[in-house]
Amino acid sequence: MIPINNRPAQTDTDRIILAHGGGGELTRRLLAEHVLGRLSNPLLDPLTDGAFVPVGGAPVCFTTDAYVVTPVEFPGGTIGDLAVCGTVNDLAVMGAVPQALSLALIIEEGLPIATLERIVDAIAASAERAGVVIATGDTKVIERRSGDGLMITTAGVGAPRPVLALGTGGIVPGDVVLVSGRIAEHGLAVMSAREGLAFTTSLLSDVAPLNGLIAAILDVAAGEVRFLRDPTRGGLAGVLCDLAEATGLSIDLDEAAVPISPVAAHTADMLGLDPLTVANEGKCVIVAAADAARRVLDACRTHPLGGHAAIVGTFTEASPPLVELITRAGGRRIVQRPYGEDLPRIC
Amino acid sequence: MIPINNRPAQTDTDRIILAHGGGGELTRRLLAEHVLGRLSNPLLDPLTDGAFVPVGGAPVCFTTDAYVVTPVEFPGGTIGDLAVCGTVNDLAVMGAVPQALSLALIIEEGLPIATLERIVDAIAASAERAGVVIATGDTKVIERRSGDGLMITTAGVGAPRPVLALGTGGIVPGDVVLVSGRIAEHGLAVMSAREGLAFTTSLLSDVAPLNGLIAAILDVAAGEVRFLRDPTRGGLAGVLCDLAEATGLSIDLDEAAVPISPVAAHTADMLGLDPLTVANEGKCVIVAAADAARRVLDACRTHPLGGHAAIVGTFTEASPPLVELITRAGGRRIVQRPYGEDLPRIC
Repeated sequence: MIPINNRPAQTDTDRIILAHGGGGELTRRLLAEHVLGRLSNPLLDPLTDGAFVPVGGAPVCFTTDAYVVTPVEFPGGTIGDLAVCGTVNDLAVMGAVPQALSLALIIEEGLPIATLERIVDAIAASAERAGVVIATGDTKVIERRSGDGLMITTAGVGAPRPVLALGTGGIVPGDVVLVSGRIAEHGLAVMSAREGLAFTTSLLSDVAPLNGLIAAILDVAAGEVRFLRDPTRGGLAGVLCDLAEATGLSIDLDEAAVPISPVAAHTADMLGLDPLTVANEGKCVIVAAADAARRVLDACRTHPLGGHAAIVGTFTEASPPLVELITRAGGRRIVQRPYGEDLPRIC
Repeated sequence: MIPINNRPAQTDTDRIILAHGGGGELTRRLLAEHVLGRLSNPLLDPLTDGAFVPVGGAPVCFTTDAYVVTPVEFPGGTIGDLAVCGTVNDLAVMGAVPQALSLALIIEEGLPIATLERIVDAIAASAERAGVVIATGDTKVIERRSGDGLMITTAGVGAPRPVLALGTGGIVPGDVVLVSGRIAEHGLAVMSAREGLAFTTSLLSDVAPLNGLIAAILDVAAGEVRFLRDPTRGGLAGVLCDLAEATGLSIDLDEAAVPISPVAAHTADMLGLDPLTVANEGKCVIVAAADAARRVLDACRTHPLGGHAAIVGTFTEASPPLVELITRAGGRRIVQRPYGEDLPRIC
């Protein structure tokens, strides 16, 4: 029998799926194929955490992030802390001094006003901790979905530090990769709350503003820090894969050196997740010249947020450019950019 | 019979309702009682359309808006046009020259990618028309609701014009109120699309970037323009009630002078809406010294977006401060700030 309508069936690739928001390969493709080409300009095209926009002659660092985490309150923080810290951190890793944030609330009908108040209090406390003000805002309400929903978009402006050139362009073989602390805690804390995993009550989100830690690092090694990034969606693996792709260099990642708490490692095991791909909200990946690695490490470790900082990897000339995990047993495993969405609505 | 649980019942006032997002009295109270006190600072407290943030010594005008309009495509525009023009307009009415926008997309699972592409094309076209760039962005995906949902938050930065002092502080009795064109077209176009009203096919959203028109006004009367505002949610009535409250002065509004197209007036009648309270997305309310009113009017009328501009009202010393509509029949009716949400998800 011949079908009456013989056009090809509409496939899943015609519509947005949750995995398009995972911060992995599918997100990259969605943006590359359907969004960025249409908006292309020299500020947007590098796809860094923010852009330096000339305003009245002086450059202003400008960034934005939308936050859709669920639940909106989780062990160690709330969507309000995320919305402040995430945007502060994006400015800080661009090498800017965060100064002010905008705050746009999209509230679902049915949200208890007491929940809103707690989250606004968290926003105020995180802003004070980070030394930024909420300068402008907007509030919208949408129809009830789950009854406890709130989405927040913040944008941030900051002042660039003088004579600081961060980016992937200066990275050379021999440069080292550091992380500022134990990985995977934000994503695992949110997932544990969602799944009701009782054994992980001691696991808290790491959400924190990194501008102080980053200032401490730049104070001791401004000229030798090549690159900074906060490993949120996609985790440490996502950042390292981006770096290998951008530099054309390989990265040897030392599994034994990657800092992770026993409870986080255990939780990741239970949930079947690779902690390298799990989101962090208070950690920084630093690429520095080998000479400066020790200084950067010491600067981290003397800061309250960097006690577990570690040197975890090295750039090499091995071709093709890959991230390879040197396992505890001495084997090698290729680390890939997560494809889609291990953890929907994690930030 | 005595109830077992004699705690007071949880009332509707404990939860967010759609009307909290209407831009009227309930929005004002929600922010005043539950949000602003917690975030209070000199930049945020004036509740203007944006704030002047010192960044590296120079002031930057900074603003944000969230857009939740449904449907995302409507006669005369899309959510993408709104997201660009709304934020450009907020910068322009602050007296700034818009320079760059951030773009945060929250996409519902199920959105056709072709729809996303059309909306991103609209964003690009509106940005080009307004002379701004999309400098930075973020994309998140949330679970399917209606299958065609997309919410956008933009923030914007712009350079303040030198020696320009806009605000309610300089308004005196005798100052005049102008509107730059026919009112209520955006809200009515979206509602008509939603209700499937066939008779209104000629009614299009007025969404447009106002920075060119406002530059033309300021070119002829910079020192005599007291105040600018784009009357979005809450409409012309909302802006005028805000002005009466802020200045302690009354406003006489001339019904016969308020520009409205016959099709918009007819549609408002059919929908049972007061066009004074309906959202506009390409109109500007201007308060100017009486001496400058004619010059401002001429500047508007020679601009492509201001052909129907009109002088519609006058500030008076009458007490208590009220907005009074002088009807066509010569009567007087008090104009109130809309209470809640005539038109949910209109922008």
